[in-house]
Amino acid sequence: MDRTKLEQLLSEVKSGETSIDQALKRLQSLPFENLEYARLDLHRDLRQGLPEVVFCQNKTPDQIAAIMGRLWDHHDRVLGTRADPEIASFVKEKLPDASYDPISRLLKLSRGDFPPLTDDVPYAMVVSGGTSDQPVSEEAAQTLEFLGNRVIRAYDIGVAGVHRLLDQHALLAEADVIISVAGMEGALTSVVGGLVSCPVVGVPTSVGYGANFQGISALLAMLNACAPGLAVVNIHNGFGAPVYAHLILRRIQG
Amino acid sequence: MDRTKLEQLLSEVKSGETSIDQALKRLQSLPFENLEYARLDLHRDLRQGLPEVVFCQNKTPDQIAAIMGRLWDHHDRVLGTRADPEIASFVKEKLPDASYDPISRLLKLSRGDFPPLTDDVPYAMVVSGGTSDQPVSEEAAQTLEFLGNRVIRAYDIGVAGVHRLLDQHALLAEADVIISVAGMEGALTSVVGGLVSCPVVGVPTSVGYGANFQGISALLAMLNACAPGLAVVNIHNGFGAPVYAHLILRRIQG
Amino acid sequence: MDRTKLEQLLSEVKSGETSIDQALKRLQSLPFENLEYARLDLHRDLRQGLPEVVFCQNKTPDQIAAIMGRLWDHHDRVLGTRADPEIASFVKEKLPDASYDPISRLLKLSRGDFPPLTDDVPYAMVVSGGTSDQPVSEEAAQTLEFLGNRVIRAYDIGVAGVHRLLDQHALLAEADVIISVAGMEGALTSVVGGLVSCPVVGVPTSVGYGANFQGISALLAMLNACAPGLAVVNIHNGFGAPVYAHLILRRIQG
Amino acid sequence: MDRTKLEQLLSEVKSGETSIDQALKRLQSLPFENLEYARLDLHRDLRQGLPEVVFCQNKTPDQIAAIMGRLWDHHDRVLGTRADPEIASFVKEKLPDASYDPISRLLKLSRGDFPPLTDDVPYAMVVSGGTSDQPVSEEAAQTLEFLGNRVIRAYDIGVAGVHRLLDQHALLAEADVIISVAGMEGALTSVVGGLVSCPVVGVPTSVGYGANFQGISALLAMLNACAPGLAVVNIHNGFGAPVYAHLILRRIQG
Amino acid sequence: MDRTKLEQLLSEVKSGETSIDQALKRLQSLPFENLEYARLDLHRDLRQGLPEVVFCQNKTPDQIAAIMGRLWDHHDRVLGTRADPEIASFVKEKLPDASYDPISRLLKLSRGDFPPLTDDVPYAMVVSGGTSDQPVSEEAAQTLEFLGNRVIRAYDIGVAGVHRLLDQHALLAEADVIISVAGMEGALTSVVGGLVSCPVVGVPTSVGYGANFQGISALLAMLNACAPGLAVVNIHNGFGAPVYAHLILRRIQG
Amino acid sequence: MDRTKLEQLLSEVKSGETSIDQALKRLQSLPFENLEYARLDLHRDLRQGLPEVVFCQNKTPDQIAAIMGRLWDHHDRVLGTRADPEIASFVKEKLPDASYDPISRLLKLSRGDFPPLTDDVPYAMVVSGGTSDQPVSEEAAQTLEFLGNRVIRAYDIGVAGVHRLLDQHALLAEADVIISVAGMEGALTSVVGGLVSCPVVGVPTSVGYGANFQGISALLAMLNACAPGLAVVNIHNGFGAPVYAHLILRRIQG
Amino acid sequence: MDRTKLEQLLSEVKSGETSIDQALKRLQSLPFENLEYARLDLHRDLRQGLPEVVFCQNKTPDQIAAIMGRLWDHHDRVLGTRADPEIASFVKEKLPDASYDPISRLLKLSRGDFPPLTDDVPYAMVVSGGTSDQPVSEEAAQTLEFLGNRVIRAYDIGVAGVHRLLDQHALLAEADVIISVAGMEGALTSVVGGLVSCPVVGVPTSVGYGANFQGISALLAMLNACAPGLAVVNIHNGFGAPVYAHLILRRIQG
Amino acid sequence: MDRTKLEQLLSEVKSGETSIDQALKRLQSLPFENLEYARLDLHRDLRQGLPEVVFCQNKTPDQIAAIMGRLWDHHDRVLGTRADPEIASFVKEKLPDASYDPISRLLKLSRGDFPPLTDDVPYAMVVSGGTSDQPVSEEAAQTLEFLGNRVIRAYDIGVAGVHRLLDQHALLAEADVIISVAGMEGALTSVVGGLVSCPVVGVPTSVGYGANFQGISALLAMLNACAPGLAVVNIHNGFGAPVYAHLILRRIQG
Repeated sequence: MDRTKLEQLLSEVKSGETSIDQALKRLQSLPFENLEYARLDLHRDLRQGLPEVVFCQNKTPDQIAAIMGRLWDHHDRVLGTRADPEIASFVKEKLPDASYDPISRLLKLSRGDFPPLTDDVPYAMVVSGGTSDQPVSEEAAQTLEFLGNRVIRAYDIGVAGVHRLLDQHALLAEADVIISVAGMEGALTSVVGGLVSCPVVGVPTSVGYGANFQGISALLAMLNACAPGLAVVNIHNGFGAPVYAHLILRRIQG
Repeated sequence: MDRTKLEQLLSEVKSGETSIDQALKRLQSLPFENLEYARLDLHRDLRQGLPEVVFCQNKTPDQIAAIMGRLWDHHDRVLGTRADPEIASFVKEKLPDASYDPISRLLKLSRGDFPPLTDDVPYAMVVSGGTSDQPVSEEAAQTLEFLGNRVIRAYDIGVAGVHRLLDQHALLAEADVIISVAGMEGALTSVVGGLVSCPVVGVPTSVGYGANFQGISALLAMLNACAPGLAVVNIHNGFGAPVYAHLILRRIQG
Repeated sequence: MDRTKLEQLLSEVKSGETSIDQALKRLQSLPFENLEYARLDLHRDLRQGLPEVVFCQNKTPDQIAAIMGRLWDHHDRVLGTRADPEIASFVKEKLPDASYDPISRLLKLSRGDFPPLTDDVPYAMVVSGGTSDQPVSEEAAQTLEFLGNRVIRAYDIGVAGVHRLLDQHALLAEADVIISVAGMEGALTSVVGGLVSCPVVGVPTSVGYGANFQGISALLAMLNACAPGLAVVNIHNGFGAPVYAHLILRRIQG
Repeated sequence: MDRTKLEQLLSEVKSGETSIDQALKRLQSLPFENLEYARLDLHRDLRQGLPEVVFCQNKTPDQIAAIMGRLWDHHDRVLGTRADPEIASFVKEKLPDASYDPISRLLKLSRGDFPPLTDDVPYAMVVSGGTSDQPVSEEAAQTLEFLGNRVIRAYDIGVAGVHRLLDQHALLAEADVIISVAGMEGALTSVVGGLVSCPVVGVPTSVGYGANFQGISALLAMLNACAPGLAVVNIHNGFGAPVYAHLILRRIQG
Repeated sequence: MDRTKLEQLLSEVKSGETSIDQALKRLQSLPFENLEYARLDLHRDLRQGLPEVVFCQNKTPDQIAAIMGRLWDHHDRVLGTRADPEIASFVKEKLPDASYDPISRLLKLSRGDFPPLTDDVPYAMVVSGGTSDQPVSEEAAQTLEFLGNRVIRAYDIGVAGVHRLLDQHALLAEADVIISVAGMEGALTSVVGGLVSCPVVGVPTSVGYGANFQGISALLAMLNACAPGLAVVNIHNGFGAPVYAHLILRRIQG
Repeated sequence: MDRTKLEQLLSEVKSGETSIDQALKRLQSLPFENLEYARLDLHRDLRQGLPEVVFCQNKTPDQIAAIMGRLWDHHDRVLGTRADPEIASFVKEKLPDASYDPISRLLKLSRGDFPPLTDDVPYAMVVSGGTSDQPVSEEAAQTLEFLGNRVIRAYDIGVAGVHRLLDQHALLAEADVIISVAGMEGALTSVVGGLVSCPVVGVPTSVGYGANFQGISALLAMLNACAPGLAVVNIHNGFGAPVYAHLILRRIQG
Repeated sequence: MDRTKLEQLLSEVKSGETSIDQALKRLQSLPFENLEYARLDLHRDLRQGLPEVVFCQNKTPDQIAAIMGRLWDHHDRVLGTRADPEIASFVKEKLPDASYDPISRLLKLSRGDFPPLTDDVPYAMVVSGGTSDQPVSEEAAQTLEFLGNRVIRAYDIGVAGVHRLLDQHALLAEADVIISVAGMEGALTSVVGGLVSCPVVGVPTSVGYGANFQGISALLAMLNACAPGLAVVNIHNGFGAPVYAHLILRRIQG
Repeated sequence: MDRTKLEQLLSEVKSGETSIDQALKRLQSLPFENLEYARLDLHRDLRQGLPEVVFCQNKTPDQIAAIMGRLWDHHDRVLGTRADPEIASFVKEKLPDASYDPISRLLKLSRGDFPPLTDDVPYAMVVSGGTSDQPVSEEAAQTLEFLGNRVIRAYDIGVAGVHRLLDQHALLAEADVIISVAGMEGALTSVVGGLVSCPVVGVPTSVGYGANFQGISALLAMLNACAPGLAVVNIHNGFGAPVYAHLILRRIQG
């Protein structure tokens, strides 16, 4: 039951065409149709912070181009994640405005620019253990930027040489939220968690030798980190982490 | 090398008592002693937001009473987590100011009260799936309160009867951060994540039948939740979650 | 917003006291309050088939006695599951009408009897692999009976001696739904699934030597059974299985 | 020992040609030959409800075409599951009556139509969390239809936006059995189980990020669901679930 | 349908009281009742080799004493496995003929002795890695002896000092079947398998430090042993292994 | 130290050229060189029962052809296991006497025939659950035949239709050892173990839907089988099982 | 065959009493008896570095006292590991020379002192993440000292406050081998491995919240550490690690 | 802040250009810049023992050639690990001095030779269970040689024929460190650990049948080995093991 229908029902009640009892019955019998509104509201609310996002993996090029095209008709910012190069080529042919980054595998459509970000704007920091974590790190960093946030990157600062990490101390200490991407034993995230007092979002990756078990070792390490300011998203979830950081940053900025 | 010693060294350089070369050598040879400052700074910084906390599990009553007593000499707020009733009795005998809550197993020492919290203060919501999750939920909620935050509780709203959860929609929608405690299949956390646009911290518990596997089913469910605004702490980690939420709330409040 | 309030709102619309626009706004802004009705409806609906049930594990004797007492004030049939003997003694002292079965660990309160069940009533069969599975089997069988169903038991018919199982062939072939409780390698459930054409609900148990892994071997076996008419509930879930069977039987009986 | 031989033995007993003792011995010594009859009976029984089904995975195109062809000679409805497009092409060349659906990967042979299904016929509902679950969902829905059942689909109603699910409430509440297909954290199935009072069959899928572990997270979630009217089949088992639902529907229809 | 009933049916056929068609029908309709005989036959067959065995774990003292007493009335050799000392005391009070061995936890009842075993009788060898494996090793060795077999023990010959094992080479080389009990990394079983040419039955135990995982490390090691003459029973299965060895020895002896 | 050298040393002792003390020292200092003999003896011993076997997986065609060629120079029977078709073609070009079976993936070289096997020779039975288990079943059956044993096959007798299995009862009851190959829930092996009194060797396979987990479900099921006459080899180990059965058969035949 | 018997055989060869052929045969037929010597040699060799050690867990007080007593008769240093306080009391009553440390659970018997260790002696460092790791850390440190090594301890320097660790940098950089004991996410070991250039032995412990899984998270973290100078022993293996470090130190000292 | 900058600051303090307070502030505010020195020192230290190493897996040919080229400009020895043949071809085109070994997948650049190693130089032994372990074994052995160490290889000495291993006893007994590479049940490593008194580094591989689980069985076996002189690196970690052995050898040689 959309707004129009609800309006009509109330009109009928007012005019006496429909009795209060009848209206009561109809309203009670459709407790969830009302939610259609809430859904739209929710979408509107979310759109203020989040662009429309299409998870491209497991979808055909045709489906992706169609969905992104339809969204692009109605929205100013559309994001596609986990897009392989072939998918990107196909979509860019159909939607010439689209741009693609092969490292993060992000497909972006955007009208208008965000106003430039000054240095006093709260920022997220994206750190990673090694160069092999780059696809996930960049997916996180660019998603954050696409959502309009200020981002500082510090890659390849894993604890095999802990000094590389300590060099970043000042930047880390000032960050408002940190996304820490790490494979192998995921110790980078623990050490970062011990150094800072802002929330840290850990993203485990599957980088490493045999007993990494597709990211389980990094995942378990982060879940068991002794530092309390640390929460974790799924292995390789380079999209969930920046959305999480974005939700925090948005609240900080009021 | 603390501040006093560093000050003295610089005085000696200024007065010529110590040559630049000698000072250089001493400064270079103690690259980490400098960090002592950072540690103190960090502690000072953290103390502004966090009271001193003692993890009581795996410690003897004597150790706990001694540590808490020493902290109580220097700090106004001291918290002990995971304290069994026997430990609590022992500590309360030694430290009569201590209070104990048997559900959350928290031991608290506190001088002075926080100013009352008005309704426009950002708040955390602590929700849980069932009454069996209460020890973890209360540990989280009371820790948040002990840290000076405004907290609203909504327990036993698991998805077996999804309406109980939807009844809380208005409160959930206004929350600034939500801690969602759930065992079994942890679906409460997923549904909450799908309803709100603030960061959600999931805490898996081991409540449930056999294949819950001590909380693994709830943990995996939360890690795999399709809603993006969700991050997870360790199973039963009723302390890490509120500290995480506290770090977010503190940033929001500036 | 309960029925009374909704009625009042509609009255106000009819009388013009509240404009359509205002009513529209109020109705849209409380999409979930309506659900309170649905919840009650759901409860009423469920009560027709299911008595009120209290999961006693992880609750204190006081809590259990209080909850069951309050339910007993308003309902004719109240069931407590997973009740230890001490809990049972405590509850029976408070509620002298309660009866307790130490094998199934069920606590029962019941006013009035079900009409006697004739032989042409659809029936569930509860089968089990060995005597060690009896606590779960009896929890299932007695729960089914408490829900008013006809039940036939056949215990200790595991495949170590497949003839014991085949002896029950006629009864199995006529059953309308079968609950198959088995530990170790859970093969009983597979073989039953291969013999009959009614739905089979498998309940894995943790009975067995080392690599049973608390019921995982039986669980995996049942999930992988080659017979297609088989679905599985959680390890030791002697309550979920009979409720499931009850839902099927109730539908068959119209 | 088939019917002819048994008849002859009994004739010999009657005529005295074979003594009772001798017959007794022969009958005792062949306990299982009798089962040949039961097997045939079972087949006849099953055929009334189930068409002949060929699991195509792990079989060569030649084998599949041969088996389906032989079945097609004797039966009016033959189903092949898990058939890749190449296999389908090969089979359709050999059996021009075959039709193939690339999404569900079902190969179908059918003579004559089922009578049209009126709206008062009991129906199964097939729901799924996301579009990536479609291959399994469609395998389930089309198998149900091939077995002559009434089916209603509701796809892409996962709990990330719980309102999409609630919109389907009326249809769900009237269903006689529900197949719920979900990957990731499988919460859709839990929520559905909490909303309805008919049996729900959960089918976990492997859709999701890293720690989904090929469907384990969804499987564990469904096994641990707090709603009692829920049972589970194997990961991706889009054939076992509809057969299970079919067995329930057939019983309901008498 | 037992022998008496079948005899009666055949008499009725002979006398013409029951027609061949009627008899045919009755015989066809009870395909499994005949199996009752086979079951008895099977039991008789097994009894020649195996005594009656009662698995005491998960049974009450009353149940065990009752079952063993009833068996003892009809059989000359009765064995109880996994009997705790309290159970043993209880049973010995009821059945004064019973003897108990606290290490193997075997309860034995036996009338008459086996004839003495000469040195040319095929024998089983029971080897173990360390003294902590003794409960399982002795359960295996004494069960073998109780079944009338010749047994040679060689304990504490784990590969930490491979020479201890090699010292037993001559005995191992002559054995007809070997039961190899080992925890930790289970390498004893691998090395034994590489030294001999008789079948080896591996029994993993849970002896060891943390990552033994209740016997999984030893189990996996034995399953992956490169020597081909090796098969494995469940962790701690000190009863299945000697029965298996007994079946082999009995065949060898004709 | 080979035989020649040892002979020479003893000659020197006899002639006095080497003192007893010196010889003692040399003999003590080379405890393992002596083992070279044992190895040869072992090989000779094994050759009586086992042909030379080459595990082809993870070896290059060149290596395999070279190794098999060298063995073929000195032995009358050479077996290659796990040989892919390309490897087989390559080897057959180099060794025209080789024959290849694409189902079992066995490569065979053989001079002379075994004498024909009469019906009173002990036999192994190879049973399997489904047609997908055929590669492993045939590897086992043909390896047994290559080792000179009498083999009876019964494939596709899984418990989904338990009557197919019971039809084989007479053959199973007479077998001297049974190899039971099964995937999915591996229940075939349990049921066979419950029907017979000879040793059964279980071989789990990875056939099945998702939660089969590459054979783990079948492996765990077999390890947990309640029938005691059952031991297990590794998943897909179609070579270890027949060697094990061969060792048993050889002992039975003396 | 011990030395005496071998001497006699050689004498017989010399005297002609035994022919070379006969001696050859006897020597070839007992390849392993010679190893008795090697075993003694090995023991002697090991004794130079290692005292006799008794693993007390899973042994009775009587057994432990007897074994330690017998060793004490022949050796100057005897060590018992994993001894509970009750066992220690019992042993100290029987062997008044024994001393016991309740933290490390070590029982020690020692005659004579090691010469004092100067500062230029190579040393092992034992570091640990937290106070809960102390039992394992002290078992390692005291075992190293009991073996005569120089040890420096640095406990409670986990990465939650990485500065505590960096403070120890100078000592770590000079160590010859480091034992790093850590639970939770085991990141201490990774960071230590990245700071030093000597071999590091990681010992995982089970300290931590739920998803530590009895030490698996720390174990996996250490196995996956990106620093290459790191190897790992079993969870809680506070004995294997110091023996390993001792073998390295002994080699360094020549 | 490097040395120059620090020197300048101290000069400014001396000259009064910068006040003590200002200097104090600057020094305190850059606690980690000092570490830049330590990092350089660490690098210098490491370079004395280790060449520059590039982990090629997960890097593009372009990246690898560029990195190795830049390192080759400044260093005399550069090593690339895990290089596929295509990468090797690409790099050799760009850097004609590079040599490649397809078995170990090592890419080497080297100026000048190590002085020849005499027989009294401490040596590492690399042993392996089977020929399939060769890629990992050779990666370990050649890395050790590239680091300037003396290496002795003994491959294919797995415990299926334990005599092959014992033949190597003399060489094993003299080794200073042993790398033991093994798949399947990893028993080789256990037996080696029991034979020698030098440190052993275990490297598990994934060679084997089904339940090897990508190396887990070998990994668990090595972690649980009863011999105490054994530590383990990650599955297939043919680089970490030789670096570990190198660190030990370097210390032994002073």
